[in-house]
Amino acid sequence: MDKLSSLARFKAACPYLGHTKPSTLRSLSTVASARYPTVSRLTEKATDCPVMGPALALRSSQLSGAKGYASVAGQAEINKLKINNAFSGAACPHAKAAAETAKQEEGHPTSKKTTATKPVAAETSASASHHHAKTGPADAFNYEKFYQSELDKKHKDKSYRYFNNINRLAAKFPVAHTGSVKDEVTVWCSNDYLGMGKNPVVLDTMHRTLNKYGAGAGGTRNIAGNGAMHLALEEELASLHRKPSALVFSSCYVANDATLATLGAKLPGCVIFSDVMNHASMIQGIRNSRTEKVIFKHNDMKDLEEKLAKYPKSTPKIIAFESVYSMCGSVGPIAEICDLAEKYGAITFLDEVHAVGMYGPRGAGVAEHLDFETHLRAGQSGEPIEGTVMDRVDIITGTLGKAYGAVGGYIAASTDLVDTIRSYAPGFIFTTSLPPATVAGAQTSIAYQKEYMGDRRLQQLNTRTLKQRFDSMDIPVVPGPSHIVPVLVGEAALAKAASDSLLADHGIYVQSINYPTVAVGEERLRITPTPGHSAEQLNILANAVDEVFVRLGIKRKSEWKALGGRAGVGIPNEKPVEPIWTDKQLGLLDGTAPVMLQGGAKSVVEPKAAYEAQERLSHLLGSAPKPIIAQPVHKTTTGLFNPTAVHTPKAVSVSA
Amino acid sequence: MDKLSSLARFKAACPYLGHTKPSTLRSLSTVASARYPTVSRLTEKATDCPVMGPALALRSSQLSGAKGYASVAGQAEINKLKINNAFSGAACPHAKAAAETAKQEEGHPTSKKTTATKPVAAETSASASHHHAKTGPADAFNYEKFYQSELDKKHKDKSYRYFNNINRLAAKFPVAHTGSVKDEVTVWCSNDYLGMGKNPVVLDTMHRTLNKYGAGAGGTRNIAGNGAMHLALEEELASLHRKPSALVFSSCYVANDATLATLGAKLPGCVIFSDVMNHASMIQGIRNSRTEKVIFKHNDMKDLEEKLAKYPKSTPKIIAFESVYSMCGSVGPIAEICDLAEKYGAITFLDEVHAVGMYGPRGAGVAEHLDFETHLRAGQSGEPIEGTVMDRVDIITGTLGKAYGAVGGYIAASTDLVDTIRSYAPGFIFTTSLPPATVAGAQTSIAYQKEYMGDRRLQQLNTRTLKQRFDSMDIPVVPGPSHIVPVLVGEAALAKAASDSLLADHGIYVQSINYPTVAVGEERLRITPTPGHSAEQLNILANAVDEVFVRLGIKRKSEWKALGGRAGVGIPNEKPVEPIWTDKQLGLLDGTAPVMLQGGAKSVVEPKAAYEAQERLSHLLGSAPKPIIAQPVHKTTTGLFNPTAVHTPKAVSVSA
Repeated sequence: MDKLSSLARFKAACPYLGHTKPSTLRSLSTVASARYPTVSRLTEKATDCPVMGPALALRSSQLSGAKGYASVAGQAEINKLKINNAFSGAACPHAKAAAETAKQEEGHPTSKKTTATKPVAAETSASASHHHAKTGPADAFNYEKFYQSELDKKHKDKSYRYFNNINRLAAKFPVAHTGSVKDEVTVWCSNDYLGMGKNPVVLDTMHRTLNKYGAGAGGTRNIAGNGAMHLALEEELASLHRKPSALVFSSCYVANDATLATLGAKLPGCVIFSDVMNHASMIQGIRNSRTEKVIFKHNDMKDLEEKLAKYPKSTPKIIAFESVYSMCGSVGPIAEICDLAEKYGAITFLDEVHAVGMYGPRGAGVAEHLDFETHLRAGQSGEPIEGTVMDRVDIITGTLGKAYGAVGGYIAASTDLVDTIRSYAPGFIFTTSLPPATVAGAQTSIAYQKEYMGDRRLQQLNTRTLKQRFDSMDIPVVPGPSHIVPVLVGEAALAKAASDSLLADHGIYVQSINYPTVAVGEERLRITPTPGHSAEQLNILANAVDEVFVRLGIKRKSEWKALGGRAGVGIPNEKPVEPIWTDKQLGLLDGTAPVMLQGGAKSVVEPKAAYEAQERLSHLLGSAPKPIIAQPVHKTTTGLFNPTAVHTPKAVSVSA
Repeated sequence: MDKLSSLARFKAACPYLGHTKPSTLRSLSTVASARYPTVSRLTEKATDCPVMGPALALRSSQLSGAKGYASVAGQAEINKLKINNAFSGAACPHAKAAAETAKQEEGHPTSKKTTATKPVAAETSASASHHHAKTGPADAFNYEKFYQSELDKKHKDKSYRYFNNINRLAAKFPVAHTGSVKDEVTVWCSNDYLGMGKNPVVLDTMHRTLNKYGAGAGGTRNIAGNGAMHLALEEELASLHRKPSALVFSSCYVANDATLATLGAKLPGCVIFSDVMNHASMIQGIRNSRTEKVIFKHNDMKDLEEKLAKYPKSTPKIIAFESVYSMCGSVGPIAEICDLAEKYGAITFLDEVHAVGMYGPRGAGVAEHLDFETHLRAGQSGEPIEGTVMDRVDIITGTLGKAYGAVGGYIAASTDLVDTIRSYAPGFIFTTSLPPATVAGAQTSIAYQKEYMGDRRLQQLNTRTLKQRFDSMDIPVVPGPSHIVPVLVGEAALAKAASDSLLADHGIYVQSINYPTVAVGEERLRITPTPGHSAEQLNILANAVDEVFVRLGIKRKSEWKALGGRAGVGIPNEKPVEPIWTDKQLGLLDGTAPVMLQGGAKSVVEPKAAYEAQERLSHLLGSAPKPIIAQPVHKTTTGLFNPTAVHTPKAVSVSA
């Protein structure tokens, strides 16, 4: 990894906006600044550095030719800004306004007056939408001013999002470069949970598909955009979930939105019961259905039953919920919800977006995982297994963009349900289908993960290790049975400061999660270990988080406990949460558990799974040009689990 | 092209469902069947072929393990179906039901009785959703039965869609294979209008991006899914439309939906004025905004003005419309709509989905094309040009999935408007961003088309040629100034029969467009020529369409004229429509017009454009490993335009 100063990294990843205000850092770091000189260095430089401080309060329209929310590039842009003198105070009204806003936020009473006498918003409006200001009627609505006021709201409630510039490198997973190709950081918050985005089998399939079928699908599924790749992927998905049918969408946001909106609108008098923690895509789909919505408390079966019982059995009902809730890592009680659905004549809509590829012997998700042995024994048949939780769920939705490393979403359900959505949902019908290479890569990834449990096992083991490490360091982790490691910070500015400092000072990228994604007071760092993270990288992360906690004065687990707890951390009578993957399922009892990477070891590519995955599309692409060989498995172990449990997959012959 | 019998092709592309009922063909072909033996052959075989005839009326759930709407594969599946005896009449209730339905449609009164006494729907329901039937309360809503009834509606009104299995081959563009890799057809209805999906510069960028950054983005734009590729694409798009900012979405369906829904909901008391022909994505976005909607007549400025005038100037208003309307090829009066918007204090929302890459000196769409010379002179600067139509439009939306050959959509507008959508639209925020390779490929495609007009010029020339040819053959084309060639058929079953026969008998894929995509009675074959279609392929198409018109007895232009006209064809006092691209712009006056491919000539790859496009991402990918060399330009010409006007781009040195 190239070494850059923390300041330089800051500029590269978030050159002028995507970081904490120096004033915040300053106040936060009073105690710690002597010990940790970096923050002092950053804050000292703030006054003479055009990329620091007041820029935080600038609106994006106030930056000439560059995006305010984004980190476009490195020194060149900064120099350009310098030349343009955009931040030189008196010379530039925008910088002045920004400085005023910054002062205002620090409580300077004078700034209000200045703002009032200097209507900056009106000025920028005039320049940004000159034709309206010039040619529209005098009493026309001022659109630009309105957009600015909407953005100001976001700035004020701290929910304005700054995008970090992160470019994940396939050859160095989980390392990425920032806006500067020379500045490398370790990514600890990607949803490419298993590193399938850099899996050589997936990439090989994609290259070959690109060569054979080109870049795009060239049409909707109905007009020239339906190919053998799309049909094969849908068969693969149906088989994965042991459902009769599946349908692929542009994304799982679209799948959820389109399916719930269509079903909710079509089923006569339908009532949709929605877990309060449901993802935005489901909320949107329910809203767009315009049917009755009943929200039930998170994972609360008593509450759900009370609400279901209020409606006649004959009323069509949908219970919409998730398996793994992404921001807290909690898991929905799938079997219990199916019980209630059957009791009250409802159908179940289960979002397995964060679970597919990650749970179950074939990677079909938590619903499959709940009957682990049964599904394991059944092998790769796509036939439904009656009585299993997965079979009892009516509609499963999933993504191709997280554990499977590609992009796109889908539903799996009964043939007629799927056909109804296919036939009626505008969001499916009237859009260009996914490119053949994307679709083929996704299928390869699914097929590979169906055959090989090593990646998701190692992911879970790394999750356990990290949780244990944090626990031993008194770092608060929101308890949960899944692969998500939410480190509680509990305050928006602090969470952002921690994220920024991890990036700038430690070369670690973990995005802070603030309101409205999580509740105010429950702000966090959402960490997602992968099988590709090494023991060394995990050590660096744990120590870095500890250092940032000390320096920024972030509350420890014991402190939350003393305060009565928050977000499940340190609550009275806290019970340990059992992880979804048991010791046995992880191979910890029989010595088959994979071990964390260490000493420069590379990720395993399992040959049998590689072969099976490549065979899936050989009727279209021909056989793979060369067999995918397993990477050498490193011989040393971390000793964390079973030192002798190096999982060495047997090589199989691969047809030429 | 491999030669298959028309029956075999039928099976490969649409093995059991995606075709016209033999009864329909039979009735249609009474006159012509003697002359054209193919239909006779098809219909004769119908009784003994499991993939023919009655299967049309089968619901997808009634096919064991295969999708009813899709054409999964070739002989293997058909044999499987034979073995399973799924279509053997008495042995299978589904086949029987299908036969009954088919009879019913032919007017057999007995069939109704049979259907009534044999509740097939209930039977399949029981098997398809066994757990509900078994475990739900007795009075629970019957979901599966409901889905079936919804699908039956589609079957009955002939709007049920069967997907053809079409796999476009990059190396043989515009040729594709069907469900059988050996069965090749020529595609004449793809939205990959310029063949950029197989452009070697685009593919080279995608391969290199795939190698460097992997398969997927791995997160939302806010969390680990925002990279330099995404930012670069948005800069490219903003520059293309000479707007301050742009934002990329999963698709333009999502872009339209998310933008209109968010703006319509946020702007206080907003009224959205929507052209009656607007695309489903806009209709959905307006609907989801839940604000007031006013529909105006297609391209009717008098109607629009009357409706605008009813509201106070101070009321926020959005006028939503398209440049090229996809199914008829008509073009919106952009400048006139801008006039009205300014007069009444509205903003304009222009969908250029079918126009980007296709019009304007830089491919920015029809809005750019309207000030062709001004934009041409301005070169590649992204600065707004005041007073131009493109500058007057407030929001331009476009796709990366049609002329640019990739997938995805975007908006381009003022910085604060874009930032507002970025900050508030759930459909943008809560979804995995597009893969780096997709984004990089799209940018390369845009950059290439910015520099090189040859593809879109040749596309327009081929469109003119085809329209002229059809006109000379009395084949009715819905008049329009754009690149779409809608051949009027005027009846749903007939349009489908024509499409099926073109595929089966002529190896030509043109999807039929029926209600609800077009009005009843205006059913059509929507043909989209590309620069990659050769003179020979065009000849084959024209003759094939003529043959199918004769055989199926489809009305000619003169017949529509005699009937008073339909869909703009043969209407009284019909005036010739001026194409958007003038002779001068096409290079017909100065001899720079490209010429149609002929005699095995390959498409041109223009070296300067290739170089410029590759340089765009060289800071991330390095320089291209080898310069893209222009393909040899064929020496013979069609003589249709200017025989001496072979456009031979000059080669430039490409950095190693």
